[in-house]
Amino acid sequence: MALLLPTPALADGIVDNVNGVTIADGGRVIHFKAILVDKDGRVTRLVPPGEEAPKLSRKELKKNAGKPLYDWRVDMGGKTVLPGFVDAHGHVLEMGFGALSLDLSMTKSLDEAKSRIAAYIAGNPDRKWVLGRGWNQEAWGLGRFPTAADLESVSGGHPIWLSRADGHAGWANREAMREAEVTGATVSPAGGRIEKTGGAPAGVFVDGAQGLIEKVVPQPLPKERDAAFLTAQRILLGYGVTAVADMGTTLDDWLTYRRMADIGGLRVRIMSYAMGVETASRIGGKGPTPWLYNDHLRMGGVKLYADGALGSRGAWLLKPYSDAPGQSGLGFLTDDQLQNQMSRAAMDGFQVAVHAIGDKANQEVLDAIQVESETYTGDRRWRIEHAQIVDPTDLPRFGKFGTIASMQPTHETSDRTMAEARLGPNRLAGAYAWKSMLTNGAKLAFGTDFPVEKPDPFATWAAAFTRQDADGQPQGGWQPQELVTREQAWWAMTGAAAYAGFAEKQFGALAPGQRADFIVVDRDPTMASPTDLRATKVSETWIGGEKVWVRK
Amino acid sequence: MALLLPTPALADGIVDNVNGVTIADGGRVIHFKAILVDKDGRVTRLVPPGEEAPKLSRKELKKNAGKPLYDWRVDMGGKTVLPGFVDAHGHVLEMGFGALSLDLSMTKSLDEAKSRIAAYIAGNPDRKWVLGRGWNQEAWGLGRFPTAADLESVSGGHPIWLSRADGHAGWANREAMREAEVTGATVSPAGGRIEKTGGAPAGVFVDGAQGLIEKVVPQPLPKERDAAFLTAQRILLGYGVTAVADMGTTLDDWLTYRRMADIGGLRVRIMSYAMGVETASRIGGKGPTPWLYNDHLRMGGVKLYADGALGSRGAWLLKPYSDAPGQSGLGFLTDDQLQNQMSRAAMDGFQVAVHAIGDKANQEVLDAIQVESETYTGDRRWRIEHAQIVDPTDLPRFGKFGTIASMQPTHETSDRTMAEARLGPNRLAGAYAWKSMLTNGAKLAFGTDFPVEKPDPFATWAAAFTRQDADGQPQGGWQPQELVTREQAWWAMTGAAAYAGFAEKQFGALAPGQRADFIVVDRDPTMASPTDLRATKVSETWIGGEKVWVRK
Repeated sequence: MALLLPTPALADGIVDNVNGVTIADGGRVIHFKAILVDKDGRVTRLVPPGEEAPKLSRKELKKNAGKPLYDWRVDMGGKTVLPGFVDAHGHVLEMGFGALSLDLSMTKSLDEAKSRIAAYIAGNPDRKWVLGRGWNQEAWGLGRFPTAADLESVSGGHPIWLSRADGHAGWANREAMREAEVTGATVSPAGGRIEKTGGAPAGVFVDGAQGLIEKVVPQPLPKERDAAFLTAQRILLGYGVTAVADMGTTLDDWLTYRRMADIGGLRVRIMSYAMGVETASRIGGKGPTPWLYNDHLRMGGVKLYADGALGSRGAWLLKPYSDAPGQSGLGFLTDDQLQNQMSRAAMDGFQVAVHAIGDKANQEVLDAIQVESETYTGDRRWRIEHAQIVDPTDLPRFGKFGTIASMQPTHETSDRTMAEARLGPNRLAGAYAWKSMLTNGAKLAFGTDFPVEKPDPFATWAAAFTRQDADGQPQGGWQPQELVTREQAWWAMTGAAAYAGFAEKQFGALAPGQRADFIVVDRDPTMASPTDLRATKVSETWIGGEKVWVRK
Repeated sequence: MALLLPTPALADGIVDNVNGVTIADGGRVIHFKAILVDKDGRVTRLVPPGEEAPKLSRKELKKNAGKPLYDWRVDMGGKTVLPGFVDAHGHVLEMGFGALSLDLSMTKSLDEAKSRIAAYIAGNPDRKWVLGRGWNQEAWGLGRFPTAADLESVSGGHPIWLSRADGHAGWANREAMREAEVTGATVSPAGGRIEKTGGAPAGVFVDGAQGLIEKVVPQPLPKERDAAFLTAQRILLGYGVTAVADMGTTLDDWLTYRRMADIGGLRVRIMSYAMGVETASRIGGKGPTPWLYNDHLRMGGVKLYADGALGSRGAWLLKPYSDAPGQSGLGFLTDDQLQNQMSRAAMDGFQVAVHAIGDKANQEVLDAIQVESETYTGDRRWRIEHAQIVDPTDLPRFGKFGTIASMQPTHETSDRTMAEARLGPNRLAGAYAWKSMLTNGAKLAFGTDFPVEKPDPFATWAAAFTRQDADGQPQGGWQPQELVTREQAWWAMTGAAAYAGFAEKQFGALAPGQRADFIVVDRDPTMASPTDLRATKVSETWIGGEKVWVRK
């Protein structure tokens, strides 16, 4: 039966009267004055600035006589509209838990941190365990790791467990170590290090050693997970981030996303990378899940770890740390182990994303990609996460096998002095080498590694084309030969970040056929000075043609 | 904008020219000649046999002139159409794994079982572990449990682990016990029993003791789970079962259902009861999931266990077994533990379903329901699964607090001689007491406990109103005072089984507003003799107005 449909409106909806700016692959900036959106929340057309009201043929005009042209219309009053940002590397639930727990990230000294901890304990007397995050002995100018003894005067008998800003070390007090039965006799597990003083555990546990304490930390309840998710989502939407790669989704993280999505609470789009091959397989079975919930969720890949982080000297270096001559960091996996895990993921069609910070770790992963690419051909998009310190001779290898460098510009501005201390002056040529990645033909995707850094895309953007921090330091930018252009940075935070997650058909660019994910901001970031750009405020966030967040 | 819709067809679809028979609450049998189905796969109307072509007003006739009355029409050629059956208690993936593994359920002797095992090993030389199910020393007339020694001549060095027909005991060989490091020194865990000969483990592990071996049995891969699911679903649809309560869904079972549903492979409807409170909470969070995938999946409750099974003497009795005077079976949980777990589930709004076979276990659960109902009021539908052996003085208690007796008629016909042996002649008055449940005002839901029994609703139905087995034994029915009527049985297998799973608004009765789940069969079961009823063959199974299975 042929249905007799009424003459349809020209579009289901129009977001009208905007100063629209977006970017296409290759760096072309596109201006538009309106977005047409269909029933499924996809962009059907961007109306160029010069174009008047839609030009209709005589016949169309007759058909549409007396009828509105659109089912709905929103007038933005000339405000600037941009594509939603895609964060290529973050940790959704960690950010939510962090926001709901003790936050030490803004503390400037050990004493300030201790005051915060004491205040938190006073304000939360019912919580047996005191959990927190964000400390950084570098930011405190402490010149050493903090110790369990430092917490003695504030604990009030509570076990305390505090995660370092980079998540690669934890700080425990005496009570926490007692609960975990960690003593001077406890040996550091493979891939981890127990800091010691005079044979006794000092309080800090690096990388794999964190598990010694974490195994006795009470697990969050599902309702606490839900609260953490909603908190994280609110933060992301408030920064104009409409999609993220969740790097290391656990089974319970995944159950949380589904629980939220099942009741319509998942608004931000999540490209999920399972924590390890087994989790990927338990969730996806023989391969990635389909895109679920109208392109809001997909488990498409696996997150693996080749090493730790620079701050805690867990990053795996070719030569010893300049500020700790006996140490070269930690390789988490042997070459065989890494390749075995990559094979297991790749043979089921999962994308592989490997954390590599140090030059030795990056070399190991590049070697593994080379080997794996012989067997697993086609469009694999091998990802190296962070690719922070790379031996200059290895840089060209990023251009091969479709490798993606997934990097975080704000790490450079936050960590440059620490990196200089760890590496010395002669190993910086391949550090945070964004421009070299592009020059060598690698795909470059930008993210923030939230909650290690705030998921602030404007800070990322400004850092990327200045290599200066918020105070404009250093003059002229740090290692300025590795600057990228404003357009290159923007694409790395939108279309390329979606591409890095096999999502380029779904979102990333504000263009016909893509989901209508966009944000309303208070200035035009393509025209703003770096300082002004950093101050950009998002007033509305739209996902799939629906307004999902408004600044209050 | 008001949309100008074309005049709609009278219905989206019609399943026409059927000998339709269904049942409503209260036992009323309803005949119909056609089913009208809407776009969402719901029944909009059952057309009564006498009614001619739809009577249209002059205005409607004019409107519909020249147009078909329905978007689609299927002519069933006068075949009998029934509502799909709802199985109130089964184990979906276990049935699938069982069907894909060594099946001993039809063996008539230990020697036959040994031949099967030897043949299976010869046919599957690559499988290190030999896994199977379905043995029953009662059916073999063995008069004792089998032993590890019985497997010595056939194992070929493979570890062997075989589950008893009721799932409440397992049979291991020497190699399996060696892998599990079980020796004469191993003590039986709480809620379990290691059978022994001369101080050494004999080979059979009852109830909780099965875990000693199972912990070393390799876990199935996700792809094996998918295959098991699809196999189980095919079996269910072939029997005309369109919805099931999955009693004890593990996290990996749940992930399998979602994985299948995400790619459109979940056709049978699943009312999921999580294996334990923690699993329910990890999946559902603060309460049941919504109905997902157009009423195909919901995790609404928790499965708990009060005791074991009768065959393995794990059922918990008020007085010792007649055929094992020193034993009274096993209570899995103390009263406090049971009530604590029920509280934890109920406070989050999960339904509670507790396995109870023995009269002592049933008493414990009835006590717990009485206590819990004081706090957790409202429509709770506490379920007792099996309710097999009940002290006659406890029978009236099933009529209180909205309690549901979830029972399996074919267990009675399969187990009656075993039950007589276990209980002696004086404890049968409250055994498989279906009629008493109804008389006392309990809600009665029927299932099969597949794969313990085949998920054959026609066998269940015939057993329910005859209390005779397929051979018509015993004459006049076993304990015939507990017969239910044909109509009572039918309702317990359809509408009441859906009600027992909080699904009565979704399916269970073929009536307007319900999902159009129905089957095409080769005879009218309301007219058939018990023998003929048992021989009923399903030719097509439809779920949500879609044909999902056809006999080949």
